Amino acid sequence: MNVLAVEKAMIAHLDSLTKPKGSLGKLEDYAVKLAKIQGRVPPLVRKKAVYVFAGDHGIVAEGVSLYPSEVTYQMVLNFLAGGAAINALARGTGWEVIAVDAGVAADFPPAAALPAAARFLDRKIGKGTKNFLVQDAMSAAEAKKALDTGHALADNAAAAGYDLVAIGDMGIGNTTTAAALLVALGMDASLVIDRGTGIDDTALARKREVILESVRNRGPFSDAEHVLRSVGGFDLAMMTGFILGLESKGIACVLDGFPVGAAAYVAFRMKPSVVDWLFAGHRSRVKGHAPVLEALGLDPILSLDMRLGEGTGAVTGGFLIELAAKAAGEMASFASAGVSESAEDEKDF
Amino acid sequence: MNVLAVEKAMIAHLDSLTKPKGSLGKLEDYAVKLAKIQGRVPPLVRKKAVYVFAGDHGIVAEGVSLYPSEVTYQMVLNFLAGGAAINALARGTGWEVIAVDAGVAADFPPAAALPAAARFLDRKIGKGTKNFLVQDAMSAAEAKKALDTGHALADNAAAAGYDLVAIGDMGIGNTTTAAALLVALGMDASLVIDRGTGIDDTALARKREVILESVRNRGPFSDAEHVLRSVGGFDLAMMTGFILGLESKGIACVLDGFPVGAAAYVAFRMKPSVVDWLFAGHRSRVKGHAPVLEALGLDPILSLDMRLGEGTGAVTGGFLIELAAKAAGEMASFASAGVSESAEDEKDF
Repeated sequence: MNVLAVEKAMIAHLDSLTKPKGSLGKLEDYAVKLAKIQGRVPPLVRKKAVYVFAGDHGIVAEGVSLYPSEVTYQMVLNFLAGGAAINALARGTGWEVIAVDAGVAADFPPAAALPAAARFLDRKIGKGTKNFLVQDAMSAAEAKKALDTGHALADNAAAAGYDLVAIGDMGIGNTTTAAALLVALGMDASLVIDRGTGIDDTALARKREVILESVRNRGPFSDAEHVLRSVGGFDLAMMTGFILGLESKGIACVLDGFPVGAAAYVAFRMKPSVVDWLFAGHRSRVKGHAPVLEALGLDPILSLDMRLGEGTGAVTGGFLIELAAKAAGEMASFASAGVSESAEDEKDF
Repeated sequence: MNVLAVEKAMIAHLDSLTKPKGSLGKLEDYAVKLAKIQGRVPPLVRKKAVYVFAGDHGIVAEGVSLYPSEVTYQMVLNFLAGGAAINALARGTGWEVIAVDAGVAADFPPAAALPAAARFLDRKIGKGTKNFLVQDAMSAAEAKKALDTGHALADNAAAAGYDLVAIGDMGIGNTTTAAALLVALGMDASLVIDRGTGIDDTALARKREVILESVRNRGPFSDAEHVLRSVGGFDLAMMTGFILGLESKGIACVLDGFPVGAAAYVAFRMKPSVVDWLFAGHRSRVKGHAPVLEALGLDPILSLDMRLGEGTGAVTGGFLIELAAKAAGEMASFASAGVSESAEDEKDF
């Protein structure tokens, strides 16, 4: 079936179920979109994983974050030990957690010595990016390798049988990199540069200056890949490659917050149809997130003022997509349950 | 510990966990409220059930609904067979479903002959209420019995060890009853009388006229219990008693949509402190729901344009309360995970 036939069949299926037509609201929209992605009526979620891409950012040398870079490494270990927010929320909603070292500045112990509450994938492109205020964040070869590695992870996800994946982020400084990417791609700096809650007016002014000066120093840019290597990150570039790599695989992908949204926006600029397989798990409290979602045309599932990252908003919101698929797959029809239908086209209990 | 001490201890606990302070947003608020209700830091959700109160409404004789009353009975059978939306969503989020016959107009087969995908509780006060346009919906004795029965169900919930309960509704005509209750209690009719999506301008005008004339015919009212017996329903009155009965039991209660909200508002008018143990699972697309939540001072967890009832919004939103408790209960602390804290008071990854 082509995608329009799937959509029509899915809507007809939903309308046959024992509920007033459309009364599951956005859950019905999610089920329809998932059906279109999977080419299956009703859609199914049998296996799902959140990929948390971790990387360090040379731009932190400019004092844009209150946390030291070591926290990136420490938090990845926390993921592997099962003690982070993403572990608790993923356990509670049935997602596997896959921590991807895309470019953490420190070396991890050998795999056998790591705790295994989450999977660990060593895909390190380099030990953190360069400080893009003064030089390109990475070489063209590194950018290509990060994109290709992300694409290969998407191939692996398909081979492993995931129906639904989510993307999370962990990287001290990654909101600065995300904002720089967006500004370099033409978004309004005043919309995407956020105070966060931890920095004061002086630090915010400094962060803004660092981002704007970096974009001036590195530009002008020939295309999105040029932007990515100039002011990007290994983690964000690998997410971009992952999103692009999911094309035509029948796998839906749930985005987390601002850094993941920026990586998705880079993918969108390379290939606008990526939004066909993307969901926005939530809208975070980070100021720049809402305009990114608007640019992508994605309506967030949740809006709970979360701003933690790690994929926490993606797994929580993304779980509702699975619930929508369950409702569509398990409910009785008016005919099978012997329930009277309304005479009207729009059913109203 | 008194409730303020619990609140303080819970916030300190959340701030010790490996995340920027406050970064789980409203999930942290839910965990704090649940801790205050349970008197336990961190709070726990071990066992939870959704009580779906079913009843018929004599006011349907005035043509306010597109569906015949038989659908109430048919849908309760659908709950027991496991084929309704509430069954699918409750299975997917781990809630037991308890269908309570508070006043369905038809007789159910004996318990042994019923399917058992959900529990069935026969608490029938009567076979549907009277048409309150022309007479009181129920007698004072019936109203008292419905309230007392709801209270006894709350006692049973505590004895059965539920930490979290949700309330759903099933009753053709119950939105008309809910609107009449709210108007009789002084809310603005233009805010709470909804077209629904199934009735046209003529039918809406008729519904509005029926509600306003009923309230004029039955009033003036001496108190909320008088309102309840005059223009209420067995289902809604039993919900009101259930909510009141949960006081001091350490059980949090998640509300569904407009009819449940109206029953909660009646409880609130009888005892304003009920909001201390209530959560709003969602804000539905039914027009009158938002003003009810506002009057209760409850912030809805989800806003997905759902308008199905049955507890579907309550179990879906209420599941996020459980997730919040899981995160609070399972996450590592900065100290235990060896993660560096920010020097600043407000932590910002």
